[in-house]
Amino acid sequence: MYVGLDVGGTFLKGARIDGTGRVETRIHEPVAQDTAEKLLEQMTKAVERLGGGAPIRAVGVGLPGIVDHSTSRVRGVPNLPALSQLEGTPLGEELAKRTGRPAFIENDANAAGLAEAWLGAGRDAASLLLVTLGTGVGGAVIIRGRLWTGRSGYSGEIGHMQLDPGGVPCGCGSRGCLETIVGSRGWARRAEEKLRSRSSTLAGNPLEPAAIVEAARGGDAVALEVVEETARALGQALGGALNLLNVERVVVGGGVAAAGPFLLDRVVEQTRGRCWPKVFADCSFRLAELAGDAGVVGAARVAMVGLNGLGL
Amino acid sequence: MYVGLDVGGTFLKGARIDGTGRVETRIHEPVAQDTAEKLLEQMTKAVERLGGGAPIRAVGVGLPGIVDHSTSRVRGVPNLPALSQLEGTPLGEELAKRTGRPAFIENDANAAGLAEAWLGAGRDAASLLLVTLGTGVGGAVIIRGRLWTGRSGYSGEIGHMQLDPGGVPCGCGSRGCLETIVGSRGWARRAEEKLRSRSSTLAGNPLEPAAIVEAARGGDAVALEVVEETARALGQALGGALNLLNVERVVVGGGVAAAGPFLLDRVVEQTRGRCWPKVFADCSFRLAELAGDAGVVGAARVAMVGLNGLGL
Repeated sequence: MYVGLDVGGTFLKGARIDGTGRVETRIHEPVAQDTAEKLLEQMTKAVERLGGGAPIRAVGVGLPGIVDHSTSRVRGVPNLPALSQLEGTPLGEELAKRTGRPAFIENDANAAGLAEAWLGAGRDAASLLLVTLGTGVGGAVIIRGRLWTGRSGYSGEIGHMQLDPGGVPCGCGSRGCLETIVGSRGWARRAEEKLRSRSSTLAGNPLEPAAIVEAARGGDAVALEVVEETARALGQALGGALNLLNVERVVVGGGVAAAGPFLLDRVVEQTRGRCWPKVFADCSFRLAELAGDAGVVGAARVAMVGLNGLGL
Repeated sequence: MYVGLDVGGTFLKGARIDGTGRVETRIHEPVAQDTAEKLLEQMTKAVERLGGGAPIRAVGVGLPGIVDHSTSRVRGVPNLPALSQLEGTPLGEELAKRTGRPAFIENDANAAGLAEAWLGAGRDAASLLLVTLGTGVGGAVIIRGRLWTGRSGYSGEIGHMQLDPGGVPCGCGSRGCLETIVGSRGWARRAEEKLRSRSSTLAGNPLEPAAIVEAARGGDAVALEVVEETARALGQALGGALNLLNVERVVVGGGVAAAGPFLLDRVVEQTRGRCWPKVFADCSFRLAELAGDAGVVGAARVAMVGLNGLGL
């Protein structure tokens, strides 16, 4: 038995999960926003409640920040004040002390990558690139069946691959990154620009990716163009990443992946021709399969991987 | 003792190398261009001559093509007719049969990456990205001390990362790849374009990277601009690759790297700001150290790695 906790900007989700990945109990509650201490208390209580009387071997946590495994510390957590107060704290050790269980932490996209590789769209692949599409664009790299987090925990940050050197500034300090184009604010910005000079069913509505995809499905030309631009940018980034890594599977997840094959098929077409034909032929592209469970399942997998050394 | 053979488009280089990387004997001769059979005979004789009476444990070969380890076959060898006739042949097995020694083959950029990781500019790094700058732009990825060749042998092909979707067509079938900009033909094309409207000491001279660098050192504004563009394109590609892989070392090799710090320092400056600051801070950038020996040393390393299973 393992406990997986998925710390998000709004909710804390948790689950008790057995060694085969079966979810036995869940919690889902607003995350403690204010202070690090309250967040740590909430996480500790969540572990106790989820554990019940069951023998919990380890606790895993996925969180929206970079985890530097060389120092066991969290960094770069812009969205959650309580968590950003923990920057520089060895969070795994702290949680282990409070829960009495071995505890391991990981970036949430990396945790989702582990989950998909274990039980989802990558379960039959030894090498995998996960891309998560949401407000931000994250990712995870799995090589020879093992998560590669990089020297300082940033590996998989495909969202900050620069596509347009003259593009808009990005939160990372660069400009024209993939995320500035295909993160949800990128969808909105591109739609807005087009709406200044063109009419569309999108006018007056919130320019969320889901609404834009819906309008595109309905035949709205502006919306379809936004979707096509998204696919082109993703194709450029993925083509480059595939030439560099030659992985056998690309998994597209995150909220925006709910657009399904309507988006994925276009991304695949735009990737074709932007990498070596053999590299493209040897890679299959899938939508993430674990959806809302990827966070807690991935966190539990982080616990298993952490407890058992390094292998997956 | 190992024999390393470096099959190039013009020369066959070879060396007998001991387990510490010391070169004991060398050969350097025009490569058999015409037929696969002649090339195989030449390689076999080279192994015999280099071996002398010494006990050779294994033979390694680096060659200008992609090696698909899942099938042990060579593909994509545009520059050498004799070798391209061997496409689809399990070259390692064939060479083992002829030499009576275990034989292993690898892409030449990957072999150079192994050489640098073993004895050169990456010897203290557990993760490394090699970029080779020459007529083409190749590379190698080393993760956890092991070469990652990818599902079908293409890993490290950073030269075909698309930087400019509207750019010039590339031999890989895409357009605007890094190689179209910073491969030696890219230097020449960009210099030529500028020479149409501007005066420069480059006019009337062969537009080779080395000559352009020399002119830039001498203060020629057009030449300097070509160098700066090269650095910018490399910075964009490396920034993206670093965010994706977060390796601790970038090694720049190949003939064009003879430009030394004059080019490398500019590449480093252009990479800074195109990846997460921490990713940049945790990566050191070095020129390749093994120069002309990288090929044969890398090939010998291919033999050692092949013989001993997978680890470096």
